[in-house]
Amino acid sequence: MSTAPLGIALIGAGRIGQLHARNMVRNPRARLLCVLEQDKERAKSIAEMARCQMVWEFEEAINLPGVEAVFVCSPTDTHVDYVVRSVEAGKYVFCEKPVDLDLGRAKACVQQLGDRATRVMMGFNRRFDPSLAAIRQAVEQGDIGTLEQIVVISRDPAPPPPLYVSQSGGIFRDMTIHDFDTVRSFAPFEFVTVFAHGSCLFSDDIRAFNDYDTVSVQLIGPGGETCTILNSRRCSYGFEQRIEIFGSAGTIALENPRPTHVKWFTKDGEKRGPLYEFFPQRYASSYERLLNDFVSQARLGAPFSVTIHDGLCSLALAEAARRSADNRLPISMSAII
Amino acid sequence: MSTAPLGIALIGAGRIGQLHARNMVRNPRARLLCVLEQDKERAKSIAEMARCQMVWEFEEAINLPGVEAVFVCSPTDTHVDYVVRSVEAGKYVFCEKPVDLDLGRAKACVQQLGDRATRVMMGFNRRFDPSLAAIRQAVEQGDIGTLEQIVVISRDPAPPPPLYVSQSGGIFRDMTIHDFDTVRSFAPFEFVTVFAHGSCLFSDDIRAFNDYDTVSVQLIGPGGETCTILNSRRCSYGFEQRIEIFGSAGTIALENPRPTHVKWFTKDGEKRGPLYEFFPQRYASSYERLLNDFVSQARLGAPFSVTIHDGLCSLALAEAARRSADNRLPISMSAII
Amino acid sequence: MSTAPLGIALIGAGRIGQLHARNMVRNPRARLLCVLEQDKERAKSIAEMARCQMVWEFEEAINLPGVEAVFVCSPTDTHVDYVVRSVEAGKYVFCEKPVDLDLGRAKACVQQLGDRATRVMMGFNRRFDPSLAAIRQAVEQGDIGTLEQIVVISRDPAPPPPLYVSQSGGIFRDMTIHDFDTVRSFAPFEFVTVFAHGSCLFSDDIRAFNDYDTVSVQLIGPGGETCTILNSRRCSYGFEQRIEIFGSAGTIALENPRPTHVKWFTKDGEKRGPLYEFFPQRYASSYERLLNDFVSQARLGAPFSVTIHDGLCSLALAEAARRSADNRLPISMSAII
Amino acid sequence: MSTAPLGIALIGAGRIGQLHARNMVRNPRARLLCVLEQDKERAKSIAEMARCQMVWEFEEAINLPGVEAVFVCSPTDTHVDYVVRSVEAGKYVFCEKPVDLDLGRAKACVQQLGDRATRVMMGFNRRFDPSLAAIRQAVEQGDIGTLEQIVVISRDPAPPPPLYVSQSGGIFRDMTIHDFDTVRSFAPFEFVTVFAHGSCLFSDDIRAFNDYDTVSVQLIGPGGETCTILNSRRCSYGFEQRIEIFGSAGTIALENPRPTHVKWFTKDGEKRGPLYEFFPQRYASSYERLLNDFVSQARLGAPFSVTIHDGLCSLALAEAARRSADNRLPISMSAII
Repeated sequence: MSTAPLGIALIGAGRIGQLHARNMVRNPRARLLCVLEQDKERAKSIAEMARCQMVWEFEEAINLPGVEAVFVCSPTDTHVDYVVRSVEAGKYVFCEKPVDLDLGRAKACVQQLGDRATRVMMGFNRRFDPSLAAIRQAVEQGDIGTLEQIVVISRDPAPPPPLYVSQSGGIFRDMTIHDFDTVRSFAPFEFVTVFAHGSCLFSDDIRAFNDYDTVSVQLIGPGGETCTILNSRRCSYGFEQRIEIFGSAGTIALENPRPTHVKWFTKDGEKRGPLYEFFPQRYASSYERLLNDFVSQARLGAPFSVTIHDGLCSLALAEAARRSADNRLPISMSAII
Repeated sequence: MSTAPLGIALIGAGRIGQLHARNMVRNPRARLLCVLEQDKERAKSIAEMARCQMVWEFEEAINLPGVEAVFVCSPTDTHVDYVVRSVEAGKYVFCEKPVDLDLGRAKACVQQLGDRATRVMMGFNRRFDPSLAAIRQAVEQGDIGTLEQIVVISRDPAPPPPLYVSQSGGIFRDMTIHDFDTVRSFAPFEFVTVFAHGSCLFSDDIRAFNDYDTVSVQLIGPGGETCTILNSRRCSYGFEQRIEIFGSAGTIALENPRPTHVKWFTKDGEKRGPLYEFFPQRYASSYERLLNDFVSQARLGAPFSVTIHDGLCSLALAEAARRSADNRLPISMSAII
Repeated sequence: MSTAPLGIALIGAGRIGQLHARNMVRNPRARLLCVLEQDKERAKSIAEMARCQMVWEFEEAINLPGVEAVFVCSPTDTHVDYVVRSVEAGKYVFCEKPVDLDLGRAKACVQQLGDRATRVMMGFNRRFDPSLAAIRQAVEQGDIGTLEQIVVISRDPAPPPPLYVSQSGGIFRDMTIHDFDTVRSFAPFEFVTVFAHGSCLFSDDIRAFNDYDTVSVQLIGPGGETCTILNSRRCSYGFEQRIEIFGSAGTIALENPRPTHVKWFTKDGEKRGPLYEFFPQRYASSYERLLNDFVSQARLGAPFSVTIHDGLCSLALAEAARRSADNRLPISMSAII
Repeated sequence: MSTAPLGIALIGAGRIGQLHARNMVRNPRARLLCVLEQDKERAKSIAEMARCQMVWEFEEAINLPGVEAVFVCSPTDTHVDYVVRSVEAGKYVFCEKPVDLDLGRAKACVQQLGDRATRVMMGFNRRFDPSLAAIRQAVEQGDIGTLEQIVVISRDPAPPPPLYVSQSGGIFRDMTIHDFDTVRSFAPFEFVTVFAHGSCLFSDDIRAFNDYDTVSVQLIGPGGETCTILNSRRCSYGFEQRIEIFGSAGTIALENPRPTHVKWFTKDGEKRGPLYEFFPQRYASSYERLLNDFVSQARLGAPFSVTIHDGLCSLALAEAARRSADNRLPISMSAII
């Protein structure tokens, strides 16, 4: 197995592309070779930091000598095209979520890739969070017995800008999709029914785009297991990410970590410091570990642990949730996939 | 205002009647004067502990000199009859939950009582828990802003005996009803829609009675607020009672208390001791405070803070939840009341 | 064994005498028969609450028919006299701490009592705190291996009134003495060296009485074990009572309990409510359990678990601490006892 | 100000030198140019990872073109020599603790450096821990009022190997010295008296070198403030690092962080995962931040925030603690410095 750094082309240098680029620079096992980004300022900034090339066409990127892998971090409607072309060019691919906003296109993409779908890692970074990984392992080895009730609480500190909302595909495809993947990562079954409720409790912008700012989703498993997911686009106390899984032998739960481990006792009681601001801070280590895992699996030529098939399944749950919330009725997954 | 102890007749000396009797003995503001209980052993045990009389007919109890108040702790199907007769005899009444298993009979009872319904305190003891009272106060004074999402987790340590299950009216009327009341106690509105899911994940006994051992209920408020209630009849780590309320300005949450305040650090990590075993231990102080409040309001001739009307509202939610779970559809409360 | 309530005479009805009297009224196993208290208002208040007699001479109290036990809650300089006379009259005795301010008088008292010393329970109520009892049990059964380092943190919310300070015998005999007893209750040895530091950091009143408001005591065991006790007469956040014991196999620690189990998350971080105000609230259950244990042991005619000998040992540590702080040198216990 | 990476020579590539080298490789603001290490395997390993030169003489290292700074991570008895020669060559210097085992030599070094002492950063990495930095800031801005009592608990998971013990200068100079520096970093005064107790509770190896495996140190400030430091060379549950500072307006405390944020509830109670294994894991981010701060201050030509003078002061406290423990008497700092 080669110990040389893995040569990578970065497609798209928005917020998330920049995050991956910074991790590549800090990781001696990866080398960013080129960036494709139409915004020249952004492209230049990445090129300087990583001492890499700027390219202006996708073909140029995948044909650059040394490029073994492609990070697809461009706008969602370009994912499918870039993923397919990269795989066909024999590259390993990392694809940011979601696969596509349209379930049909996503399905077609997975079908077209066939066996090669395992060469695409889907950008569900939270699977690489050390705490969520520990929870998955505990559930798999039976520490809490048979899984019965799950609660996921996931709240953003503040609503995204209107432009982002307009292109996001709605809260279920953009935000809840991470929670769907998290739950799927440890549930030993696929959920069969979805009942979702959505409302606009505070954001007129979000309402204007016919989207929801606050949702509550209930998933029902084949054996009567339930999972409740609560999302809000606003949380006064930071980025909240909790989960608890109740089983026949106990509960396992993820707490909100904090940047410091300080507590105060004053006349007002006991206080702990604020939560992490948002996902780049909260999940910093998961992105680092994701890159490490990507390099390891690529070097081994082994299938990735989270694939475009996982992307498709979570997208289908998002589609069901949207239909359920709009129609105020439970939706059977057999009607979706 | 009289400072003499309030004279009380106890109707029914099962588990819960005994609990109230012990609190009467320890409280100098109350005096238990007689007990009506067909099981002679139980009756005698109460009479000895409280140095009070045994009576064998309800009329005897309410006509005993000094009796100012009646505690109705008899089987559920006798509640309505005893409550009405006690009120008509001019007594203050404490009635254990639920009012009745039948929503129609409960409604008729409330109608018959009319203005006098405020003379009946409903046995939702949890309202008197210091922590839940502090939460109610915080919500009322706006500490967390506008209420948006609520989660209630309430789990019994182990399923009740089959006989109890058969007479309980089902998990929603017997167990979830406490959670319905808790949520109603601080929500500044009544919920308008109920979607419930029920399953039998571990108890064949409960399944045999066409009941559920595990339920997940979603309540929807008039402004799009949501409340999720999770119940289980079995919890490997004790009696779990948590709640968290998310609002526009923050979250307030009830943690599980413990009998001791000890923590251990060993090679296995950090450990805290077990939770309370069940409700008589966990809610001991709420029952004491409930009795104090009952005496105070009776002495003032003032309306009770939790009335038979509250009993009716929570019973209606239980009815809706049952229909929803049986039919796998959301139920509008306007179809119930 | 008689199941009749134990007849008790209360000597002294100050703050602590009143606390014991209230517990006697609420406990069906005890009956307060008379109170000896020179302040007529206080005496009358107790007599009315407990429906008991007032007496004005000690002889009257111990000769009252039915009196089986005496609670000595009078000023410290009367303890020895009342304890000895009560024991000689064949009574069981509860004696508030300390035995006496003078170590010599305390020693003489224990010698005079001889075998009968086990008929006197010393008022170290904290031994009956459920958490401290659990810690003692864990240490005794070896849960943390061999004991190596102990930390006790014990802080009062605010300095006592000047009159109290003037009669208290100083912070070591009045306040630290509780911590000495707690540590002695689970250490499998007696400490051999004491090094104490005292200062007046905030109270001119306390300085005026040549006392300390803040102390730090180091105890050294025969095998090189150490125990640090930190006391302050002022704590901005309530009554602080913590302990942690580090051993070869782990640590066991007592946390500060709280009256409610609520937590808040707001933009300022995570918050928990205030601690208990002071010892009557924090140790309410320990006083109830102490009375129960006193009655049980008296009814069995069995030795008390915490005796006047324990009172003597802790007083000797207090004496050593005072000498050490005054002379700024370590003191060997062999120089004291 | 130059934005080019700072050119660094690494002197010594033992455990701690390797740690710094890894951080240099990951930090785009630093460039490791050469390593001086007599162990060829170690030298080669660093040279390959960092793609830097190996040198075999100190003069070669400081004369290498581009070297602007020197990291002195060699054995303690070489620190003074390398520091002085580096400063005289006009380099910025990072010096691992302690300055020297001999207080006299350390004093002479500081005197010789004079004004240039601020060009030497002392290796007290814990100052850069985000939690300890937050605590320092809170204390400085008066959040807890006037400082009254401090407790520091610092325990290693397991004793170091005998060779390390033999060269360490003893527990006070090797381990407690970190705690001395931490306390000095936020106390607005220097401590005036030291009373220390040391024992060998478990390690015959440590006893054989006339050292202690367990110590308890009491520091006394000029106004009667106290600080207790507890150290042990063995802790069954990992690397324990806690501190709490009690002031007139409250307490601020550092908790033990954990690698994961998971909790379990099972029939045995509530459990959290293990602590960090040892300092490289616990203080990983403090070493990264230290390097960043070193580069920033060097680029600005500004004095370092923790200097060789701080190294001297903590070494003096260690010297006093050793004398106190050996003689079992309090030591005045005026007798040391």
